[in-house]
Amino acid sequence: MIRVTVWGENVHEKKSPVVAKIYPEGMHACIAQALTDPELTARTATLDMPEHGLTSDVLETTDVLTWWGHAAHAQVDDKVVDRVHRRVLEGMGLIVLHSGHYSKIFKRLMGTTCSLKWREAGERERVWTVDPSHPIAAGVGECIEIENSEMYGEPFGIPVPDEQVFISWFEGGEVFRSGNCYRRGAGKIFYFSPGHETYPIYRHPKIELVLRNACKWAAAPGVRIVDASENVPVEKAREKLTMKGGSVH
Amino acid sequence: MIRVTVWGENVHEKKSPVVAKIYPEGMHACIAQALTDPELTARTATLDMPEHGLTSDVLETTDVLTWWGHAAHAQVDDKVVDRVHRRVLEGMGLIVLHSGHYSKIFKRLMGTTCSLKWREAGERERVWTVDPSHPIAAGVGECIEIENSEMYGEPFGIPVPDEQVFISWFEGGEVFRSGNCYRRGAGKIFYFSPGHETYPIYRHPKIELVLRNACKWAAAPGVRIVDASENVPVEKAREKLTMKGGSVH
Amino acid sequence: MIRVTVWGENVHEKKSPVVAKIYPEGMHACIAQALTDPELTARTATLDMPEHGLTSDVLETTDVLTWWGHAAHAQVDDKVVDRVHRRVLEGMGLIVLHSGHYSKIFKRLMGTTCSLKWREAGERERVWTVDPSHPIAAGVGECIEIENSEMYGEPFGIPVPDEQVFISWFEGGEVFRSGNCYRRGAGKIFYFSPGHETYPIYRHPKIELVLRNACKWAAAPGVRIVDASENVPVEKAREKLTMKGGSVH
Amino acid sequence: MIRVTVWGENVHEKKSPVVAKIYPEGMHACIAQALTDPELTARTATLDMPEHGLTSDVLETTDVLTWWGHAAHAQVDDKVVDRVHRRVLEGMGLIVLHSGHYSKIFKRLMGTTCSLKWREAGERERVWTVDPSHPIAAGVGECIEIENSEMYGEPFGIPVPDEQVFISWFEGGEVFRSGNCYRRGAGKIFYFSPGHETYPIYRHPKIELVLRNACKWAAAPGVRIVDASENVPVEKAREKLTMKGGSVH
Repeated sequence: MIRVTVWGENVHEKKSPVVAKIYPEGMHACIAQALTDPELTARTATLDMPEHGLTSDVLETTDVLTWWGHAAHAQVDDKVVDRVHRRVLEGMGLIVLHSGHYSKIFKRLMGTTCSLKWREAGERERVWTVDPSHPIAAGVGECIEIENSEMYGEPFGIPVPDEQVFISWFEGGEVFRSGNCYRRGAGKIFYFSPGHETYPIYRHPKIELVLRNACKWAAAPGVRIVDASENVPVEKAREKLTMKGGSVH
Repeated sequence: MIRVTVWGENVHEKKSPVVAKIYPEGMHACIAQALTDPELTARTATLDMPEHGLTSDVLETTDVLTWWGHAAHAQVDDKVVDRVHRRVLEGMGLIVLHSGHYSKIFKRLMGTTCSLKWREAGERERVWTVDPSHPIAAGVGECIEIENSEMYGEPFGIPVPDEQVFISWFEGGEVFRSGNCYRRGAGKIFYFSPGHETYPIYRHPKIELVLRNACKWAAAPGVRIVDASENVPVEKAREKLTMKGGSVH
Repeated sequence: MIRVTVWGENVHEKKSPVVAKIYPEGMHACIAQALTDPELTARTATLDMPEHGLTSDVLETTDVLTWWGHAAHAQVDDKVVDRVHRRVLEGMGLIVLHSGHYSKIFKRLMGTTCSLKWREAGERERVWTVDPSHPIAAGVGECIEIENSEMYGEPFGIPVPDEQVFISWFEGGEVFRSGNCYRRGAGKIFYFSPGHETYPIYRHPKIELVLRNACKWAAAPGVRIVDASENVPVEKAREKLTMKGGSVH
Repeated sequence: MIRVTVWGENVHEKKSPVVAKIYPEGMHACIAQALTDPELTARTATLDMPEHGLTSDVLETTDVLTWWGHAAHAQVDDKVVDRVHRRVLEGMGLIVLHSGHYSKIFKRLMGTTCSLKWREAGERERVWTVDPSHPIAAGVGECIEIENSEMYGEPFGIPVPDEQVFISWFEGGEVFRSGNCYRRGAGKIFYFSPGHETYPIYRHPKIELVLRNACKWAAAPGVRIVDASENVPVEKAREKLTMKGGSVH
């Protein structure tokens, strides 16, 4: 069983009537609901919980973390970001959603600006499958039609994805790399752009399918690679060595 | 003319007699000397200078920055790291040398641990050219023999390099990805591992050649991509759009 | 001076009045004209010439080859394809245009199907710059508007590009990775999809700019890496070795 | 259950007493034996069988094909290579072993020379794990010690691997990218270099483990992406379109 923790900022849902109407239970609860699957078990955590709900214990028992944030990236404690970062590099999967492109954790893992173009006009988005054999695209078909979406446009300030699963078309004329895979340390990372809070995108069956697929792809339950800068002393070299030259140590 | 700034920590040179003897002028000065070339002009900056010698003015007029640090990574001011990071993403080239694998700037750009194995035994290192057509390998031939070197061994906690130029063999039995290229934002990054402070590695003609090649490869004098998260309003969409759906903005 | 050879199939221009009207001089001649630049010198070669105009002598003196073909891929002699392939791996740049995605040389270099979706409806294509700092995008701006174009759509059966320069938007609702870079052997390869023969796309100033940029990016005048499977005998090993074990040689 | 077909050239085993002594049952049989695992079922096929044992029926019921060949690459029928190539792009995994680097199928999938340095001296090889979290490295530990091996050295004429799992050290002083992953079409490809026929390398427990891991990694039992160049007619465009401009079709 893959243990997923769904992290939600849960700010807009409480402040904006538009969002509260679409996601009365909170976006995190809706996303957790979407992960109903025999192979997955999901719980939620939010910004307002102690340590944002991401204590060491929670992370230790998390195989995949999903991340949705927008209004309050700056309020996420750097210590929690450090902890999440370490766990991703150790092998925890990470699914970064929509405006999470500007989260501390995503920017830290990418090393780049993660900037993009945007427009909130409720326009049509069509998410094209670029890599039909990719496990994250299983069952999706050639594309996902989203009737109302926020436009995210290129250039997207990210490293070249290791695997390009989806690219989106927008009614207003833009394109966007909307489904991107990375491996960083032992962790698998998937960024998926659809999911603006003012439209019921996380209730779209194909979006929910992508989320489930992504959790299964990113999970590596048995993997735990602990960071080490290992000194190999001369006498333990695999080939016989004699110490030569100067030293500062 | 490519404007290179050679940054050196300049700590070991002052504290360790072994290092002072090899690099009496400081490692940074030796590296700058190695960059003598009709296409390059080099100046130096060190940790003990105000703002570590990396003021906005200096960075604005730098096409390529080289970075050597070891003992004092933690003393590098986060504000200076922010500034260097921004300039790399805008298009400044960055050459990270040896123990700079653990510098704040390299770890930030990679997003990973950047950890490795190591042993200071003065053993032989042989840097093999993996990509003989790469501009950084021009004139190097099949390998570089370094009689005394510090061992750096795999696993090296980095993203898969975009281009793999060199891989090293060590007398004690290890291997290491010693010449690795990345593109991050508009910046080109080259990590090159040989260069331990207790051996005269930056006086090796082929190492000096690699440094010059790397500066020429990483430079993009006319490039300046400024970070922007651009809103494209409905009325400026390239296809005619009508606002639909809800909004939080 | 970078020596470019512009290869054109030159079949449609002679058979189709629509194409002949747009490119009375032949598409190859129009493309060569677009390469007018102080750093470039261009000549043309066509299918109907002996050895398709791609003799050993021509290839030996070519730094970058551009390839446009559509109706007659199967008529290209395998021996000529072998020769071009070898030259690319040695270091000759290759710019593959539009329907050249199905050419023998591109399929051979990619190792994949190179298949795609298509529609000839004269619809609008907007080529978005994904990597604004890339030399091939220099001066292009955020996008190229093409009023009438053939739709090429995903999935495009190619390996993940090493560098993603452009992605296209189509009026009919599709997207396409339209500007893709690869390094294979010592050769740099750029695939650029706009260029259907029934529209004057190669007369578009920004398309012409991309072609010039691409030739400059792909050129590596001094590079010539000859294929070799080199035996290193025991007595020439860089570390002292004694022959051990069995042998079939 | 993952269905593996182990293909062996089976030439040296019959001609060379040295090889026959090490692999009296044939290398293919030894490799199939190494795949004994609750998740795998293995059968063998050899060059001398009709269609080299790789009929359409066999390939249709193969999830992963392993390939060992050396002396008789040229004798492999191009029609069989076409068929294997198609199946890999459709989703069949492929494990290419040792001298299989020069097989028709590997060269076709890579698009490059696949050349390398070599020396048959029975020297020590140490296969280092570069990516300890990779499924193919599971249980391998930091390295594999091979007492007698054929040296394969860089430069290796391949595209940059998508994932670098292993890099080898050789007693005579060379290094080699010995465990390389690629995705081509829907197929996952793993090249693994140890396996010279004059040493009992396929009887080494860790090499056998890598083979089992690789088969599990490469398998995608439910995946079957059939090559198609799909025309999308104007009336089936997802956005309403009107035919414009000229046509050759």
